Amino acid sequence: MVKYTLCMREHFYVFLPVVCFVWQIAMIILFGVFVRYDEESDAHWSEHKREKNITSDIENDFYYRYPSFQDVHVMIFVGFGFLMTFLKRYSFGGVGFNFLIAAFGLQWALLMQGWFHALDPADGQIKIGIENIINADFCVAGCLIAYGALLGKVSPVQLMVLTLFGIPLFAVEEYIILHVLHVRDAGGSMVIHTFGAYYGLTISWILYRPKLDQSKRLNGSGYHSDVFAMIGTLFLWMFWPSFNSAISDHGDGQHRAAINTYLALASSVLTTFAISSLSAKRGKLDMVHIQNATLAGGVAMGTAAEFMITPYGSLIVGFCCGIISTFGYLVITPFMEKYMKIQDTCGVHNLHAMPGVLGAVVGAITAATASESVYGHEGLVNTFDFKGKYAERTPATQGGFQAAGLCVALAFGIVGGAIVGFILRLPVWGDPSDDNCFDDEVYWEVPEDEESIPPILEYNSHMVGKYADRM
Amino acid sequence: MVKYTLCMREHFYVFLPVVCFVWQIAMIILFGVFVRYDEESDAHWSEHKREKNITSDIENDFYYRYPSFQDVHVMIFVGFGFLMTFLKRYSFGGVGFNFLIAAFGLQWALLMQGWFHALDPADGQIKIGIENIINADFCVAGCLIAYGALLGKVSPVQLMVLTLFGIPLFAVEEYIILHVLHVRDAGGSMVIHTFGAYYGLTISWILYRPKLDQSKRLNGSGYHSDVFAMIGTLFLWMFWPSFNSAISDHGDGQHRAAINTYLALASSVLTTFAISSLSAKRGKLDMVHIQNATLAGGVAMGTAAEFMITPYGSLIVGFCCGIISTFGYLVITPFMEKYMKIQDTCGVHNLHAMPGVLGAVVGAITAATASESVYGHEGLVNTFDFKGKYAERTPATQGGFQAAGLCVALAFGIVGGAIVGFILRLPVWGDPSDDNCFDDEVYWEVPEDEESIPPILEYNSHMVGKYADRM
Amino acid sequence: MVKYTLCMREHFYVFLPVVCFVWQIAMIILFGVFVRYDEESDAHWSEHKREKNITSDIENDFYYRYPSFQDVHVMIFVGFGFLMTFLKRYSFGGVGFNFLIAAFGLQWALLMQGWFHALDPADGQIKIGIENIINADFCVAGCLIAYGALLGKVSPVQLMVLTLFGIPLFAVEEYIILHVLHVRDAGGSMVIHTFGAYYGLTISWILYRPKLDQSKRLNGSGYHSDVFAMIGTLFLWMFWPSFNSAISDHGDGQHRAAINTYLALASSVLTTFAISSLSAKRGKLDMVHIQNATLAGGVAMGTAAEFMITPYGSLIVGFCCGIISTFGYLVITPFMEKYMKIQDTCGVHNLHAMPGVLGAVVGAITAATASESVYGHEGLVNTFDFKGKYAERTPATQGGFQAAGLCVALAFGIVGGAIVGFILRLPVWGDPSDDNCFDDEVYWEVPEDEESIPPILEYNSHMVGKYADRM
Repeated sequence: MVKYTLCMREHFYVFLPVVCFVWQIAMIILFGVFVRYDEESDAHWSEHKREKNITSDIENDFYYRYPSFQDVHVMIFVGFGFLMTFLKRYSFGGVGFNFLIAAFGLQWALLMQGWFHALDPADGQIKIGIENIINADFCVAGCLIAYGALLGKVSPVQLMVLTLFGIPLFAVEEYIILHVLHVRDAGGSMVIHTFGAYYGLTISWILYRPKLDQSKRLNGSGYHSDVFAMIGTLFLWMFWPSFNSAISDHGDGQHRAAINTYLALASSVLTTFAISSLSAKRGKLDMVHIQNATLAGGVAMGTAAEFMITPYGSLIVGFCCGIISTFGYLVITPFMEKYMKIQDTCGVHNLHAMPGVLGAVVGAITAATASESVYGHEGLVNTFDFKGKYAERTPATQGGFQAAGLCVALAFGIVGGAIVGFILRLPVWGDPSDDNCFDDEVYWEVPEDEESIPPILEYNSHMVGKYADRM
Repeated sequence: MVKYTLCMREHFYVFLPVVCFVWQIAMIILFGVFVRYDEESDAHWSEHKREKNITSDIENDFYYRYPSFQDVHVMIFVGFGFLMTFLKRYSFGGVGFNFLIAAFGLQWALLMQGWFHALDPADGQIKIGIENIINADFCVAGCLIAYGALLGKVSPVQLMVLTLFGIPLFAVEEYIILHVLHVRDAGGSMVIHTFGAYYGLTISWILYRPKLDQSKRLNGSGYHSDVFAMIGTLFLWMFWPSFNSAISDHGDGQHRAAINTYLALASSVLTTFAISSLSAKRGKLDMVHIQNATLAGGVAMGTAAEFMITPYGSLIVGFCCGIISTFGYLVITPFMEKYMKIQDTCGVHNLHAMPGVLGAVVGAITAATASESVYGHEGLVNTFDFKGKYAERTPATQGGFQAAGLCVALAFGIVGGAIVGFILRLPVWGDPSDDNCFDDEVYWEVPEDEESIPPILEYNSHMVGKYADRM
Repeated sequence: MVKYTLCMREHFYVFLPVVCFVWQIAMIILFGVFVRYDEESDAHWSEHKREKNITSDIENDFYYRYPSFQDVHVMIFVGFGFLMTFLKRYSFGGVGFNFLIAAFGLQWALLMQGWFHALDPADGQIKIGIENIINADFCVAGCLIAYGALLGKVSPVQLMVLTLFGIPLFAVEEYIILHVLHVRDAGGSMVIHTFGAYYGLTISWILYRPKLDQSKRLNGSGYHSDVFAMIGTLFLWMFWPSFNSAISDHGDGQHRAAINTYLALASSVLTTFAISSLSAKRGKLDMVHIQNATLAGGVAMGTAAEFMITPYGSLIVGFCCGIISTFGYLVITPFMEKYMKIQDTCGVHNLHAMPGVLGAVVGAITAATASESVYGHEGLVNTFDFKGKYAERTPATQGGFQAAGLCVALAFGIVGGAIVGFILRLPVWGDPSDDNCFDDEVYWEVPEDEESIPPILEYNSHMVGKYADRM
């Protein structure tokens, strides 16, 4: 049966090299035409500094944001990557394909986001600095969330296509939400999580595999793969305060965003443990919940983290999210699989979709109820950027626009996912057969297991691996 | 036998959810009443900045401490968490319960430490900023150290109770040492390590299990669990300079604390390897030593890191600690278990107690011998905070107070541990039976092992897992 | 046969403890004589600050470089350490010996580099601060790269000797390149990677083992050890922008170096996946390539990262390196082993040597073509440090010196490696026999495997471990 699958793939196996090569060359050409350093990363900085009366090198935005950038970078590559190693025989695919599509996606995102947000009108070029590369990582996160819904069921080429379309969808959606609607969403509850999750879920729905239980022997975790996944969980959990504060305002904005996220996450952990233990026979805890639902508080603080939501407000958000998310794993994911034909490998609906929507609602309410007595006049103007043509906008109006932003994110996720889903359904991408999902053997050279090291003197070739017959 | 244990637990299995829920709700209420943003994380920062003539956002304390905070955060969750995954079948419990109690503890610590250190007399509220959340992480570290002594032998509810009492004990002890005695202990040799270790060891002594060897088949490491534990070791080791410098003085204080800790840790590594190799037959190295004793230099620099202990002074401290700590694993831990009835799973006596006491002594000596010729007048005043009502204190007196601080830490650890130990001995907490210690099966849904994936065509249900009979 | 090896080692097994002790004591003495804090980490900083009219503590170099330092530190200990855990039964040695030699090397490097770069002429002492400890980590990296070529084939004492000689070789080479030739190499394409790789390869050539295939059963990865190695890969990959920007110029220099490295690395990932897939039967990906060649872009940007190489220039460098490096694993490593008698366990020739040389060439070309129109006058002077006695140097000349720097790095690597190789060939170091290479059993107490936990009631001693007969 393995043999059959591999034969089926045989015709397509040059796809991945071709896609990687051609797209990377395209990136180089487009970067050559469009991308340059911004004034803070250009060697003319010393002149620029003098012009603007900047007295110290430490005023370079690099020093405000670089530590957060590195934390975000760890979340994207180790956080998402290792969170997806939980399947007992798909750890290579989890961390490896995450690596591939993130590395492609961030280049593509620099271009797409650059055209929408960082185009220098003087020369038509994109000027990049530290904030752009953080935003590129954010943009990639949307596609990695979508990957979570599809883990183990798609080929790397399909993932590249998912990313190719996902990045521009993200960039347009982000442009509409942040610039046209002037919505605040520094940590991306809407822009990143809601969009990414519905994008992936819609694709998963279209790629529904009725016979997926032919692979069910592999659709589960192992003892060590669960510990590997905890690496991902913890790096996401620990660095989420950096995620939500990375591009918020200098000074109190970043400071407050970090504290609020820190608190919401802590609160999520307790309610996740509570619901997980309550739901199982004999009160046993389930690693799937601990690996995922503990993070829901970070997702849900994506919009409101920089607002004056108060410390206890953050705890309440985390409290609710831990419950909702764990409940999702217990009830909603099986329901969706059975009745809605949506197979969601990592449960992104529970970790990103629901907490993302909740975060958007929390953000809208917090914005709508903002007042000068709480923020101070300057604080209100700075936090919501009520400047220029938005100088007259009131918090209540802002709340309405925040809610509108959520609708845009949902629409882009679902409609975009439907279109891309149909493209990915074409029978040309070399996806695994139903009985070979969740199996690294299909796309990777998998070593024989270490258990099979024979004693020195008894070494002979037919004992090398218990998987030998499968290769 | 497993069945028996699980039955015994059956009556208690709603404890964990109830504890998590009720305590989290209590946190929310208490935060609602007491906790607000401080002036640097509040939206009024721009007004505050103008009042205080602060010219740049980068002067916000966030930018001085956030990178160190994130490193400390990694130490708490990945460092301590993965260090405790070394047992072959208790990795879930090691990293998972560490996650739970740290997430609860940091909230509780914000309150308890806030009441003692950050209460705004104007409105009776706790104002939190970056320094408070670092301190909360520090406070949690004390309880996680105590967990190390108890690893595998207690239930999660017991750990929550240990944390519930440990945090206020810590906060009071810290208040007495740092504020009443005006002792310097930026990295917490006394406040964190000595207290935490004796707190855990005393509890372990009271919870002594004479028949623990019924679980000895599980009380050991596996090849992969030892590698997982090295993740914890290395993140603790690498980020310890941030731990000891996180809340020390801006400028040279943080700079010097990081360098001293960096050097002491390097020195510990060499003596640990030396003693480990020397002690074993055929010079073989023992992973337990490498995972733990290499960190002793960081513990022992907790007090003196910000002092002018000189680079070679730091190396000497690390040198001694590596020897003492490894020696502890070889001789003292078995002795304590056999003759003193103290079962210390992770050897916290060797990693935290002895180096912590040594660090306090080193700190006292270094303080007592401080002079204006070495520090400069201003440097001496800044380093030891000889200001206000302490303006007249001399280095020699300071040395005496430092020594007194150690006694306070010991007293709180031992007396507090005794009280909490008796509480935890009540037969209501659902702890594992003697033959089920160190086993994740008791509290977690453990997947069948990955080795048991049967070949595709031979799949049948009775082969699923070698642990099937144990579940 | 194991027994034989261990007997052979018996005479030497006190070597490691003696080396660790004596060298650590030597470090303490030398530090006592030579090493002090610099003005930014000394308690006199507040006076120094006033003298120099520094207005804020945040101007302390600590705040410019500490986040990058911690990232570099992670690369050295977790990055290199875990990258070398890929062998199925040499994970302890990979991460453990890496830990040992890095901890020794950084102390030794502070001294050696101090004598060449940080000697205070006023009192003949080395004044250390944050930049020195970053440089010490860099210096250590050279020796760790060399270890990569020798992984599994040498004893820990041999590694200590390799480090003992490697550090001074590095310091002299660095002095000639950076100071005598006034070459720019902030990320060390030449100084670190080229030198380190040829140093290790030359040693490996001299230590050639014709019968190494007696250990071939162990010279391969396992499923989990491959995932562990990905931890190393990703932390190297993510933090490489910090590596290349850690000691470059404040402001735009660090900013640009980080962006360029970020882009080159992303580009390497795609071409690595492409070549890996293209080369294998049925398009399967090989973990060895993904773990290593994806990093080549970072190596190759070591020299040019702070130059105005442009974003697309960085992508082109990464593009080429991914191809060259993967190609190296496919063709050159087997060729070198078969025809040149160089056994290169980790493939450092592909990951460090070739990309390092390429990086040096790219750096020379970029420097030679630098112009005031691109950099601005001040930018050119700052970037290439055309100050003092180098005020008259032109970019074209600089390009020539850059090329000369490469020759120096090659010469030091090869000649130094030859000398040290002959020393390491003496039959006194307790290296493993040909049939015991790549085996942790030789130097470590290895636990029985976790798979062998017997069911509770059937426990009996002869079942403990399948490796019992080998110990």
